[in-house]
Amino acid sequence: MNEEVRSMRGVEKFGPNFERIRRDIVSLSKFTSAKETGYTRISFSEEDREARKHVAQLMGSEAKLQVRIDAAGNLIGRREGKKKGPVILMGSHIDTVRGGGRFDGVSGVIAAVEVLRRFEEKGVETLLPVEAVVFLAEEPSPFGISTVGSRGMAGELSEEILASLKDDRGRTLGMAIREMGGDPARIDEARRSSDDVLAYLELHIEQGPLLFTQGIPIGIVTGIVGISRGKIEVIGSSDHPGTTPMEGRKDALVAGSEVILALEKVCKGLGRVVGTIGKIEVYPNSLNVIPGIVTLGMEIRGLGEALLDQAISLFKAELDQIANKRGVVINLETAVTMKPAIFTAGMVERIVWVCERHNIPYMKMASGAGHDATHMAEIVPAGMIFIPSKDGKSHCPEEWSEFEHICLGAEILASTIVKMDREETQ
Amino acid sequence: MNEEVRSMRGVEKFGPNFERIRRDIVSLSKFTSAKETGYTRISFSEEDREARKHVAQLMGSEAKLQVRIDAAGNLIGRREGKKKGPVILMGSHIDTVRGGGRFDGVSGVIAAVEVLRRFEEKGVETLLPVEAVVFLAEEPSPFGISTVGSRGMAGELSEEILASLKDDRGRTLGMAIREMGGDPARIDEARRSSDDVLAYLELHIEQGPLLFTQGIPIGIVTGIVGISRGKIEVIGSSDHPGTTPMEGRKDALVAGSEVILALEKVCKGLGRVVGTIGKIEVYPNSLNVIPGIVTLGMEIRGLGEALLDQAISLFKAELDQIANKRGVVINLETAVTMKPAIFTAGMVERIVWVCERHNIPYMKMASGAGHDATHMAEIVPAGMIFIPSKDGKSHCPEEWSEFEHICLGAEILASTIVKMDREETQ
Repeated sequence: MNEEVRSMRGVEKFGPNFERIRRDIVSLSKFTSAKETGYTRISFSEEDREARKHVAQLMGSEAKLQVRIDAAGNLIGRREGKKKGPVILMGSHIDTVRGGGRFDGVSGVIAAVEVLRRFEEKGVETLLPVEAVVFLAEEPSPFGISTVGSRGMAGELSEEILASLKDDRGRTLGMAIREMGGDPARIDEARRSSDDVLAYLELHIEQGPLLFTQGIPIGIVTGIVGISRGKIEVIGSSDHPGTTPMEGRKDALVAGSEVILALEKVCKGLGRVVGTIGKIEVYPNSLNVIPGIVTLGMEIRGLGEALLDQAISLFKAELDQIANKRGVVINLETAVTMKPAIFTAGMVERIVWVCERHNIPYMKMASGAGHDATHMAEIVPAGMIFIPSKDGKSHCPEEWSEFEHICLGAEILASTIVKMDREETQ
Repeated sequence: MNEEVRSMRGVEKFGPNFERIRRDIVSLSKFTSAKETGYTRISFSEEDREARKHVAQLMGSEAKLQVRIDAAGNLIGRREGKKKGPVILMGSHIDTVRGGGRFDGVSGVIAAVEVLRRFEEKGVETLLPVEAVVFLAEEPSPFGISTVGSRGMAGELSEEILASLKDDRGRTLGMAIREMGGDPARIDEARRSSDDVLAYLELHIEQGPLLFTQGIPIGIVTGIVGISRGKIEVIGSSDHPGTTPMEGRKDALVAGSEVILALEKVCKGLGRVVGTIGKIEVYPNSLNVIPGIVTLGMEIRGLGEALLDQAISLFKAELDQIANKRGVVINLETAVTMKPAIFTAGMVERIVWVCERHNIPYMKMASGAGHDATHMAEIVPAGMIFIPSKDGKSHCPEEWSEFEHICLGAEILASTIVKMDREETQ
């Protein structure tokens, strides 16, 4: 695939610098916790702070951006346009999960910085200002929420929330944001809207196998799936495993196994949704006792709340059948924890236009993972560009994306920004 | 059922004392850990030691027995016969599981003491000596093994084993046995054989629902099931739950659910065996990740090693099918951890004879739980008498057996001992 992609570079207009992108990805990968395996840069950690300083330095010295940290703790580099007006935002994040990889988030941040470096080097003058954003704490944070920075920018955080969420050392999210250079007392100032932002664009690794297995270098994201999370409690009866006949048992783990298989059946049958039971707790979880209570943590993802509701309702019907057949009690609590984001057609079509103009193979696709773009899409038109993840892997040390693909994505970012900027001048 | 049982007391020859049995069960229930719920008298604990002192006191002052502790830590009360000769043993245990009940083990110990008290009160003279034994540590102990005392009496413990098994504080089993009054350096002296023991009899609660649901007061045990324990490891692939399509997944928990259901299918299909997966561990056990590795702890119980082998072999065939279908790796390791014990026909038929002579309804049955009798059966003819467990429950605070049934069982114990003793005089 590399040959094919390399040949595309001939048609590049802005020509992102392959070596510089590689250098930056490698540099950032070194900000990792010595205590953990893989690449570990948990949000709010010392490593996270140091890595942000490194990016701030690239923004200032190489891209000549005005660098600031907003009240929500987002690191922002700004390049002015020829006139005052709404800004075009690009961004992603640089924090990782525990034992994660080198490309998730980082690819989008480095691509955004590279776009602005190329603009500077090539003397590209835009009408509108352009900003590159490193969002704070996109991954699940020690405070129990993810996408902290983009929530702040979308106006979803308040002083109350910042004071109430605590990590296991009792530190509040507000205190942690202050340590990262934010200002929790002025959290409202981080809030942006379509008055001052024209659009948001994000390059990200796919984190799934579709582009990689089909050999397509670019995914144009039509939306981000919503997530319904739930807790399933199966209550049977803890009995002696030797003296209780097979027929009389109310084994909560056997019933729970049927629940796990039922979720798979519902999702496969419905299509367009994925469902996972990732967490299980068994009581008493002893070789010597038939399991009495099983608690399962589940999620269903799909592009649209109606689809999520339909999946949950089919699943509930399956649970009722299992409960009746097994003589156990099954309780299900669910809540939509991440609303689906549908990107505006105008933004998707602009990126399509750029890809077709540059003869870059692409596919339209939904994102199965949540992103900062979910929150940005609530306030302004948003779009995402995916690049392939080797073997579909992410959140692990084996996570890999080709530097060529980051270059290609940066080229598309730059072209899309310039296209939007020109539309404004007309 | 009580009326029926009470009416039987008219035919009793030895007439165990209902009120005294009730008093003793209640007294022993008070030796329980204040730190735990239910009735908790873990082997080797302070509560266990104090409760043994209490039983020793009953043995000495009320039953006029010679009380000693053997090298393996078993508490033994002896009543001499008219001649020297092999002894008839009765016994059970008084330790409990964490959060257990008042009847498991205790019923058999108090019944044995009551038999010898009645012999004393009624001036029954036996030809052979009779001993009541409180076996040390029948339940799973802090040293990782159960039935410590009966293993010692069967010659299955050595100084090496006592020195190598340690609890989580680093104390050896030998040190713990010494604290209970035993003598680990002379462990061989605890060993007994058919040279000095004629037979072993044990009354115990059924711990299952068969007698209770059928309204039968006495179970005559034909043998104790063997146990094959095993560890099943299911190795799939940890992937992102949002970006990995349902079709491409190698979800170890979904495959593990099929494994759990397969064990149920095999045991129900084969009959005469019970199988349980009581323990599960999932990696990484996170809402955010498709489970990659699942480890299951299983056991199968059946009366006979051939039956256990057959069940394991059918189960293995199921595992191969699941592994092929799901593209996961499934490893199974099993070992027979408790050999089945088949009681000699002569002992079973003696107890049958006693029940029929007294018009006591009974059923022959296998024991699904392990007992000290398993080890005693390896060295001498052994027999067990079961009484009903309310709702089949045991190892929980709700564990309940009727005092009437303990009386009835003690009557059968006494009659069986006298019958065996008379056979010796002929």
